[in-house]
Amino acid sequence: MTRRSEIDDLLAAVAAGALPPSDAAERLAALPFLELGFATVDTHRELRQGAPEVILAEGKTTEQIVGIALALDRAGASSVMVTRASPEVRAAVRAAIPEAQEHELARAVWVRRAEPEPRGLVAIVSGGTSDGPVVHEARIRAQLMGATVVVHEDVGVAGLHRLGNALPDIRRADCVVVVAGMDAALASVVGGLAPCPIIGVPTSVGYGSAHGGTTALNAMLTSCVDGLAVVGIDDGLGAGTVAARIALHRSGS
Amino acid sequence: MTRRSEIDDLLAAVAAGALPPSDAAERLAALPFLELGFATVDTHRELRQGAPEVILAEGKTTEQIVGIALALDRAGASSVMVTRASPEVRAAVRAAIPEAQEHELARAVWVRRAEPEPRGLVAIVSGGTSDGPVVHEARIRAQLMGATVVVHEDVGVAGLHRLGNALPDIRRADCVVVVAGMDAALASVVGGLAPCPIIGVPTSVGYGSAHGGTTALNAMLTSCVDGLAVVGIDDGLGAGTVAARIALHRSGS
Amino acid sequence: MTRRSEIDDLLAAVAAGALPPSDAAERLAALPFLELGFATVDTHRELRQGAPEVILAEGKTTEQIVGIALALDRAGASSVMVTRASPEVRAAVRAAIPEAQEHELARAVWVRRAEPEPRGLVAIVSGGTSDGPVVHEARIRAQLMGATVVVHEDVGVAGLHRLGNALPDIRRADCVVVVAGMDAALASVVGGLAPCPIIGVPTSVGYGSAHGGTTALNAMLTSCVDGLAVVGIDDGLGAGTVAARIALHRSGS
Amino acid sequence: MTRRSEIDDLLAAVAAGALPPSDAAERLAALPFLELGFATVDTHRELRQGAPEVILAEGKTTEQIVGIALALDRAGASSVMVTRASPEVRAAVRAAIPEAQEHELARAVWVRRAEPEPRGLVAIVSGGTSDGPVVHEARIRAQLMGATVVVHEDVGVAGLHRLGNALPDIRRADCVVVVAGMDAALASVVGGLAPCPIIGVPTSVGYGSAHGGTTALNAMLTSCVDGLAVVGIDDGLGAGTVAARIALHRSGS
Amino acid sequence: MTRRSEIDDLLAAVAAGALPPSDAAERLAALPFLELGFATVDTHRELRQGAPEVILAEGKTTEQIVGIALALDRAGASSVMVTRASPEVRAAVRAAIPEAQEHELARAVWVRRAEPEPRGLVAIVSGGTSDGPVVHEARIRAQLMGATVVVHEDVGVAGLHRLGNALPDIRRADCVVVVAGMDAALASVVGGLAPCPIIGVPTSVGYGSAHGGTTALNAMLTSCVDGLAVVGIDDGLGAGTVAARIALHRSGS
Amino acid sequence: MTRRSEIDDLLAAVAAGALPPSDAAERLAALPFLELGFATVDTHRELRQGAPEVILAEGKTTEQIVGIALALDRAGASSVMVTRASPEVRAAVRAAIPEAQEHELARAVWVRRAEPEPRGLVAIVSGGTSDGPVVHEARIRAQLMGATVVVHEDVGVAGLHRLGNALPDIRRADCVVVVAGMDAALASVVGGLAPCPIIGVPTSVGYGSAHGGTTALNAMLTSCVDGLAVVGIDDGLGAGTVAARIALHRSGS
Amino acid sequence: MTRRSEIDDLLAAVAAGALPPSDAAERLAALPFLELGFATVDTHRELRQGAPEVILAEGKTTEQIVGIALALDRAGASSVMVTRASPEVRAAVRAAIPEAQEHELARAVWVRRAEPEPRGLVAIVSGGTSDGPVVHEARIRAQLMGATVVVHEDVGVAGLHRLGNALPDIRRADCVVVVAGMDAALASVVGGLAPCPIIGVPTSVGYGSAHGGTTALNAMLTSCVDGLAVVGIDDGLGAGTVAARIALHRSGS
Amino acid sequence: MTRRSEIDDLLAAVAAGALPPSDAAERLAALPFLELGFATVDTHRELRQGAPEVILAEGKTTEQIVGIALALDRAGASSVMVTRASPEVRAAVRAAIPEAQEHELARAVWVRRAEPEPRGLVAIVSGGTSDGPVVHEARIRAQLMGATVVVHEDVGVAGLHRLGNALPDIRRADCVVVVAGMDAALASVVGGLAPCPIIGVPTSVGYGSAHGGTTALNAMLTSCVDGLAVVGIDDGLGAGTVAARIALHRSGS
Repeated sequence: MTRRSEIDDLLAAVAAGALPPSDAAERLAALPFLELGFATVDTHRELRQGAPEVILAEGKTTEQIVGIALALDRAGASSVMVTRASPEVRAAVRAAIPEAQEHELARAVWVRRAEPEPRGLVAIVSGGTSDGPVVHEARIRAQLMGATVVVHEDVGVAGLHRLGNALPDIRRADCVVVVAGMDAALASVVGGLAPCPIIGVPTSVGYGSAHGGTTALNAMLTSCVDGLAVVGIDDGLGAGTVAARIALHRSGS
Repeated sequence: MTRRSEIDDLLAAVAAGALPPSDAAERLAALPFLELGFATVDTHRELRQGAPEVILAEGKTTEQIVGIALALDRAGASSVMVTRASPEVRAAVRAAIPEAQEHELARAVWVRRAEPEPRGLVAIVSGGTSDGPVVHEARIRAQLMGATVVVHEDVGVAGLHRLGNALPDIRRADCVVVVAGMDAALASVVGGLAPCPIIGVPTSVGYGSAHGGTTALNAMLTSCVDGLAVVGIDDGLGAGTVAARIALHRSGS
Repeated sequence: MTRRSEIDDLLAAVAAGALPPSDAAERLAALPFLELGFATVDTHRELRQGAPEVILAEGKTTEQIVGIALALDRAGASSVMVTRASPEVRAAVRAAIPEAQEHELARAVWVRRAEPEPRGLVAIVSGGTSDGPVVHEARIRAQLMGATVVVHEDVGVAGLHRLGNALPDIRRADCVVVVAGMDAALASVVGGLAPCPIIGVPTSVGYGSAHGGTTALNAMLTSCVDGLAVVGIDDGLGAGTVAARIALHRSGS
Repeated sequence: MTRRSEIDDLLAAVAAGALPPSDAAERLAALPFLELGFATVDTHRELRQGAPEVILAEGKTTEQIVGIALALDRAGASSVMVTRASPEVRAAVRAAIPEAQEHELARAVWVRRAEPEPRGLVAIVSGGTSDGPVVHEARIRAQLMGATVVVHEDVGVAGLHRLGNALPDIRRADCVVVVAGMDAALASVVGGLAPCPIIGVPTSVGYGSAHGGTTALNAMLTSCVDGLAVVGIDDGLGAGTVAARIALHRSGS
Repeated sequence: MTRRSEIDDLLAAVAAGALPPSDAAERLAALPFLELGFATVDTHRELRQGAPEVILAEGKTTEQIVGIALALDRAGASSVMVTRASPEVRAAVRAAIPEAQEHELARAVWVRRAEPEPRGLVAIVSGGTSDGPVVHEARIRAQLMGATVVVHEDVGVAGLHRLGNALPDIRRADCVVVVAGMDAALASVVGGLAPCPIIGVPTSVGYGSAHGGTTALNAMLTSCVDGLAVVGIDDGLGAGTVAARIALHRSGS
Repeated sequence: MTRRSEIDDLLAAVAAGALPPSDAAERLAALPFLELGFATVDTHRELRQGAPEVILAEGKTTEQIVGIALALDRAGASSVMVTRASPEVRAAVRAAIPEAQEHELARAVWVRRAEPEPRGLVAIVSGGTSDGPVVHEARIRAQLMGATVVVHEDVGVAGLHRLGNALPDIRRADCVVVVAGMDAALASVVGGLAPCPIIGVPTSVGYGSAHGGTTALNAMLTSCVDGLAVVGIDDGLGAGTVAARIALHRSGS
Repeated sequence: MTRRSEIDDLLAAVAAGALPPSDAAERLAALPFLELGFATVDTHRELRQGAPEVILAEGKTTEQIVGIALALDRAGASSVMVTRASPEVRAAVRAAIPEAQEHELARAVWVRRAEPEPRGLVAIVSGGTSDGPVVHEARIRAQLMGATVVVHEDVGVAGLHRLGNALPDIRRADCVVVVAGMDAALASVVGGLAPCPIIGVPTSVGYGSAHGGTTALNAMLTSCVDGLAVVGIDDGLGAGTVAARIALHRSGS
Repeated sequence: MTRRSEIDDLLAAVAAGALPPSDAAERLAALPFLELGFATVDTHRELRQGAPEVILAEGKTTEQIVGIALALDRAGASSVMVTRASPEVRAAVRAAIPEAQEHELARAVWVRRAEPEPRGLVAIVSGGTSDGPVVHEARIRAQLMGATVVVHEDVGVAGLHRLGNALPDIRRADCVVVVAGMDAALASVVGGLAPCPIIGVPTSVGYGSAHGGTTALNAMLTSCVDGLAVVGIDDGLGAGTVAARIALHRSGS
């Protein structure tokens, strides 16, 4: 019996007319959370949405981060992930949760408590070597959510033939994530070749007219290819989350 | 036998090692298109990506639009859709293709040649009545691609309780499209309730600090909710396309 | 007898026709200030407006800050507060004024000379833990001005049910301060629930499309809720001041 | 017995521990609204927040506007106000609701159903004659909500002595609204003289470096005066709403 | 004997030490121009730089435009070209100079007085049909300067295989001009394939995040391909000029 | 005896210690103005600053403009000038004040009541014919204030030798006004040649990257030449005012 | 006999028709400069414009700065000034030119070789203590050029009465420099009181919506007061230069 | 026999009709590249475009940079160049490739394996000493590609006569590169004098309104001179590449 069904039952009742919509809202509002004083941890999110809350380290003290991580872990999250974490933060989380792992380039530390059968395929392609931190943040998140991930780095369009190796994965994936800075032209090229939904991640790679990723963001948003949606600049986490949701769905949840 | 398998066979051969990747690129490059002089129509796109090219009316003369529409229709597109079309353009297309239909608010005109069994559910929710044109552009596109669509308009967060009616559809959809201008707060609220992928469409509704939709766009991109990706300002077409792709996948293509 | 009446008497005379308006201007211009060479301290502000001048540490040398703080304190201010103060500045002020207190997160140091009966209720709610510095700057300022303050942190809309605990305070406060970065969606949600004036404080929390708080600012300004006004990015001080003025008024000055 | 007490009773029960907070949320969610197809009218807003919803005409068809206005009026709103209304819209509303009045400069049309005893004083001062439309939108809204309003136009700081006549009203008001475009210097000058909360309304008056009101907005937000909060560019409606709430509070609701 | 040699002789003398550099400056300053009252026409430009001055119609009255055009024509310009000309302006110029021709899409009117042997090849490729006005402004200018021009329109990267037809011209041209709006990804793709200098022209085609061509401009400027330089948004004229200069040089002036 | 001395006597008394500074402020505040209801006319400005208030027509109704013009004229202004006036406004002012004159290109209408001996020389140079409206607004204002003005139009740096004719006036003027759009390079070139103060006026001439004059403004502000100060985009009026003040001073007021 | 007359004689000849304008250009071009390899020092600028070139330290190595300073000093400059100089640069310049002086707050180092009789009065007023560095950079430059300077710091408009002490100097100065950050409201207030030309210097003081001085800059540019011109953000040097030119002129050069 | 002919033969076959265009695309896609795991090195670029790939150090680890440099060097590149390299990176590359050279100001390290006969002349002129890093990055790149380069630094327009020495080189060059920050007025002045193509490089030199080079960029893009194209801010590399291509072409490849 999965805990997921608690919500599904609720909504089934609504759909069947057995429960007024406002009751659904009420019961959702009655769901649990933890008060830590400085934080109100949404321990119910995984039940509600299928994936646990992730902790953004920036702007929090090390003590706050460790506190939230422990609270989520103890509340039964399938995984706990801290992003944009400095070496100090990563060390402190690993000291508090010995099973935790870290990735230096991605600036992430995480622990995985449940290891479901991988489902769905996410392909991540990037324009250049410097996009690496974002690529790996996306990869880790999608894997923690249960997707299989393949990665092709540094296949920017200035040397289009380098895209050849990645084409078969682009064609068979359930979702393609394109990570690119500068002019992000890779998104349009891949977007013209892939039949599945594509998630673009503009990166802050580049200088001058790259404007810290804004050019890449706008280029992706104004691309004329079909089926491309975009997350925020350098938001590997968001891309990993939405890509995994798409991929998990397709493979038949 | 569907024409789709032509590409899939190709890639299967690559995956099996029977064909070098560069051969895949070559064969893709050998795919057909139509030269109209002022336009190079990608009649192969539907084979490659499962959905036909759409014609953006802005910046083209009426003659060019009708010419491209006829070319796509004659090349066997499952549907032909013209967006951002003035009343004159809509009338001209309907004169050239008598089976075509139009929607005034959405400024769209289209003809549907294939009517597959609807698959997958897309829920579209909007923040206000003024978002209507974008809502309906997204709805028409997703329906032409084969998805079932439900719409809930004007459920902005200033009166949160109005969201109650939409909740069951938000919970059961394969993809939720949130159409909102101004501060686009609806995206975050819905994003915290839906378990499926969410596509945000910022609209240019609002004045002053709405900055023509840029505020809504940035708000959606920087939202802390999971599973939200975004298309361009007022880009109902893009949202409809990516949502339909997600929904069709899930229901098992 | 309070010193406040000096001004009120003046204006009463104007209202009664006993004094031409230009005389009011003249007498205001005759009010005292202190020349420190590098600064012209407005020792009269508390008489004129009910709250003492606050010292922004940024851009001033430690010597200048201590000099102004001492001048205000000696001139009889009910409190002296230094904001955006580095640890060095805080230590120097505390060395010069031993009764002073400090708050590390809020980067503030202050001394309170008068302790009036608390009047009026200000409720401060924040979107995330990282908004803490702004929350506490606002809280300290409002308390120094004489208001009672309650704080609810980390109740962002991605987990709407967390707002439940804060609702009763939101409903009974004289003024609600909403502190939020990223997309600041919390402002619209709270704005739809509170019957009192709401002061929004956009924060620079977030990266990429948060644009250093500009997105949160624009989102608040373009929110469609009633009764919301906004102060500058990260301006906890301004929010505390205006909220306290509202709250003190209501409880009947 | 007023309908207002329905909510207050609810929250009193929460405060007394007789009702869990989530029940408050549930009952709020159960509050009524009207489905018009293209709009979901929040007929409950006046109960919840003390002021009825206002209809922004921009982006809506005349039929939609009249439909929403009638719905609100029939649902018992104390007043119905349509802003940014073209002459055609104003005529249509007046045809549908014969008791309605209009103001050409303010582009507003409204009907008032309840006429409570005026309470609280709002003073509105403006920098120039061209700020008139915003001044009057704010004035009408505040008056409809029950406040008394005094107006002083064209008292910009280039001729500071013109401010003399307005000073007594600035000093005795419960809330001052400063309407100013260009560099909005008037806000800082008034802000240094008024003891009450001040609401700034930047206007789009000016050309070139006025940047459509952005300069005035930023100038107000970065003003060093105490007690100033700001609404959006040209948002007379928002300023009128928040000012009336402050003034009504002070005079003792 | 060409008039060009007058300047070359001057500079040869400088290089040979027979003339001090300041004398070169002096003689340049002594070169002729025409005073029309409202305009100071640089009749010497063609001698100095090999191409006559072009008249931008925007911001000038029809009388001023015709006056300048006649002055240039009478002063012996090899061609006179008016850009961004309304139908009225085009008609007025053609009335004044009967041999003049016009192009409606390019909004240009011109007369050609000298017809040199074509030299050098410029290839112009565009992303979409809507880029047509800019394509043709560039084409006309380059042809008037004496270059041979080939054009490939609507070969955007969403259907990469459409680029196939243009590849041979891209590889053999002396200069390639890439005209593209939206995300301008075509510039990077072409830039990775062409061995010659490439001139990018961002266009204002697109809406929303296209930001009137700024996105295309920034994308081109931040492209990682080699050998790409850019002119202003929609500046077909500038692209035609610089491309013709490159092409004429190569073929051996 | 001129009325100007009234203020000078006041300040002399302050300087001599015979009057406290606050008395100066008081007496300034007692200076006269006119209340027109919709406007508060500063009839004292000419006494205070040596030049009468100018009426910006934009944002005012024709009735308001005529009312203010008559009020200023009757109050004894040495001249009355209306800027940015439509043909209708200009006709209405001329109907009300028969002695008034107008200039179509400059969109100005004015009447001159005092004709002092011209003093001081202002040289105005512009980059192109399209800058004409700004040139003439500046010229008229400076002449109304009593300066002598010489104008050199269309001497942009693309043909530097055209500047030759203007050089003697640039060298002997008391103040040079440089009017230029696009890249405003003329300001730096003139700034390197003139020994007197230079006032730059960026204009909105140009398209695309000219960004409505912002590029010209920023270019002037960041110019490395000495002695250059700048007024707002297209602000011929401001340039004329400040240039005349400089020129009148030098010639010995 | 001053060297200045060399240029004046030249231009007198032009004015008298004894010399064609192009000869003036030629002779100017023949004026001397020094080639240092990495720099081309304009030793002639003082002759041409009455003030020596100033060295901006940013972006140059210490060796380059010292080299240029020595070159200017040896070429007979009346003063040599280095701005934006780090402590290391200041020390190096003082080691190379023992008579040099420095000012820590202004980050400037300079040597004065000529000490003319002071002429003309420049009044500098600032909004706050943090504007000090800009105030003193302007003061030093103006003094080196020969003007008398009086300074009034920290007289921002939040306490208008503090302006009282500065009023007499504002009224009698030949030029007023207003240095202000944040909303720069001081410029408009002073601009309404001073009869002479006013030079505004926006500063980068302030945070958030101050946008690094852009708000202050735009506020000054869009101010409705007469006679105000502006230099770049934090450009004390430029303000000092133009103010001194104005003041020196007025006092009769 | 050069390897270049491999591609030319291919295209000649296409032009002759002996090979369909899609075959050209296929063969291009079959060209070699190296997979390093974190990078996909385009070893074929020099064959395809005549110049080897350059390594941008920013965003890569030292290990990645050295790895790519060695891979390119071993694959037979005529030169390997690393730009924006820290001293550590430069030392590491020189340790790995002992023949490598470095330039501190340009932050570049490179090795040259082929030394062809210099062909074509590139003239680089700069506005100020601070533009040096960009000047030398452009110079090194152009020299490595085989062009002859002459450099004239610090000839900004504030002292126009300094340009005299550079004029003969500007007139005889095959391509002029103008490197300038601040207002970049030098580009327009040079653009009015040179008969060849001009490449502008805006630099981030300047502060305040220079906006990190954006002002210089926009000024160059909106310049009215003919024949000017622009690369990104501080992109000396791009300018060197395109200038060398132009110069090599002209001298007859």
